[in-house]
Amino acid sequence: MQFQAESARQSDLQAVEWRGTSLVLIDQRHLPEKILWIECQQAADVAAAIRDGVVVGAAAAGIAAAYGIVLAARRIGETTDWSAALADDFALLEAARPSSAVLCWALRMLQERLRRPRAISADVPALLDEAARSIQISDAEANRATGRLGVQLIRKHDRQPQQLLTHGYTGALSGGGRGSALEVIRAAHGAGLVAQVYVCAGYPGRSGQQSVWELGMTDIPALLQADTATGQLMKMENPSWLIVGAERIAANGDLIAERGTYALAVLAMHHGLRFMVVAPSAAIDLQLEHGDDLELDNHESGPWLDVTPADLIDVIVTEKGPIQRPGETGITNLLSPRRLH
Amino acid sequence: MQFQAESARQSDLQAVEWRGTSLVLIDQRHLPEKILWIECQQAADVAAAIRDGVVVGAAAAGIAAAYGIVLAARRIGETTDWSAALADDFALLEAARPSSAVLCWALRMLQERLRRPRAISADVPALLDEAARSIQISDAEANRATGRLGVQLIRKHDRQPQQLLTHGYTGALSGGGRGSALEVIRAAHGAGLVAQVYVCAGYPGRSGQQSVWELGMTDIPALLQADTATGQLMKMENPSWLIVGAERIAANGDLIAERGTYALAVLAMHHGLRFMVVAPSAAIDLQLEHGDDLELDNHESGPWLDVTPADLIDVIVTEKGPIQRPGETGITNLLSPRRLH
Repeated sequence: MQFQAESARQSDLQAVEWRGTSLVLIDQRHLPEKILWIECQQAADVAAAIRDGVVVGAAAAGIAAAYGIVLAARRIGETTDWSAALADDFALLEAARPSSAVLCWALRMLQERLRRPRAISADVPALLDEAARSIQISDAEANRATGRLGVQLIRKHDRQPQQLLTHGYTGALSGGGRGSALEVIRAAHGAGLVAQVYVCAGYPGRSGQQSVWELGMTDIPALLQADTATGQLMKMENPSWLIVGAERIAANGDLIAERGTYALAVLAMHHGLRFMVVAPSAAIDLQLEHGDDLELDNHESGPWLDVTPADLIDVIVTEKGPIQRPGETGITNLLSPRRLH
Repeated sequence: MQFQAESARQSDLQAVEWRGTSLVLIDQRHLPEKILWIECQQAADVAAAIRDGVVVGAAAAGIAAAYGIVLAARRIGETTDWSAALADDFALLEAARPSSAVLCWALRMLQERLRRPRAISADVPALLDEAARSIQISDAEANRATGRLGVQLIRKHDRQPQQLLTHGYTGALSGGGRGSALEVIRAAHGAGLVAQVYVCAGYPGRSGQQSVWELGMTDIPALLQADTATGQLMKMENPSWLIVGAERIAANGDLIAERGTYALAVLAMHHGLRFMVVAPSAAIDLQLEHGDDLELDNHESGPWLDVTPADLIDVIVTEKGPIQRPGETGITNLLSPRRLH
């Protein structure tokens, strides 16, 4: 089912809206020209929406997938073996975007919930519903925390209004809250630290257009840059930071992100820009030793991603804190159980 | 006047075709989908065609401009002061693409011709016609020479089939002959040195599409690459050379070329690719001390160009010979009168 809005303000928009028995997704393929919604009644609808780019952000895909499992559980209603009954749905949703670490993490959270003793006697669809909601809420909280932490880092280096560069869509429709990199930029603007935002187009994708549209809604000065213009831009305009989101972060700090990020990271190093990655800690995949171990070629989303080695990154900002000059030790320390509680 | 071909082979095509009383230009804005020609009867038509992107290459623009002066002279017919009578036409044609060094050089050649003693009594339109033809012929000869020299350099480093990367359109429709960078690639393919050519898209321009179309005509394996994909490509596919053309080369070796070249040059250095610039010596502007002295912002074509510092370039190949690790001395020596004869 599809429906359309006459007009909408960004503040009213939510990428993923859970209605208890259905999931409503903004069809981001038509933004910013048209605001259309798609209503999903079952897991297969959600998987198709993720695969087809209705949902854009890696975190939003994870949240949508979690609700996809709730929809599947509601259809099943009752069973003595929930893990077996939902196995196909888990596989279908994971395959919709296996590159998204948040998606894999969200599905793993739900699988673990099923394995807890209480799940045998309880109302399992209700348990899963609660878990999916908490995944969405914690992503929103992570967005708020990384927004604050990111601004602190920017201010630490320079208290003047400055030029920021971003790539990929990481705004309010990319997850459960107000966004990752774009929320840092929004918060920095609120703190008087932004003179100009430059947004890479990401052609033939539409991530740049979507970011400029969203920044424009809160009157943040944002200019769309052709992908071929970013080198000259760094040389001539002296932006201070390159700020991006993440599809997945490896245990050693390597970054898998929107294609073009790697070249921007090399150019940032060459021009002395600082490079900040903003992501929820759920985007960190400790099982993935190095970024290049992820076989992008085997993923449908692979051609839209690239791998940036950790040594090009100045800081990864998660809700648990920033990791400066990321490497295995910094990431393991951040995610250690001591830090989790 | 505009006319259209049912079908055409690349070998039949010429960007600039002089018919003695009119100039026929392929309208490259419609390539490769449609082959359309535009016939120019006067200098203003030629200037408009250059400005509007009918003619794409910097050298082709120079050749077309030279014939534009011939058209203007034929309309004037007779005068005692040719320099004064043609001054407006020279200004108009130069303003059509002042960034093209070959265009400025070609117009300067014709102006010098007018100042020679013989020009007072002779049939001046015929003199200019002869000069314009010789500009076109020498560009074709330069293409042949740089093709040969470029292949020698590639072979010197590696005799195996290898992967080459190019950016910007530098083929048979970019000047008077078979092209600059693309002719090096074509000749390298003929010599068995090419496994794969990667062509940067140059979006929103169409240079990449035009290059892939032309390489495909002679069955050279060429793949169009999104501009955001070039970093990951260099990392994963290990191309050996980045090969491009030039809009203008400064006295210190700085390169003004299609936008995106600068970022590719930085990435090439980071990944250990060798970087070759292929251009006729007419593209070298000894009056321009540094690349950044050219005020791109003041040129209509400025937003489509960028400046690559000489220290990122391994070799500039001109018809007078290659300049390794270009700098002021190498360029001055190459262009010294001793070498001109």
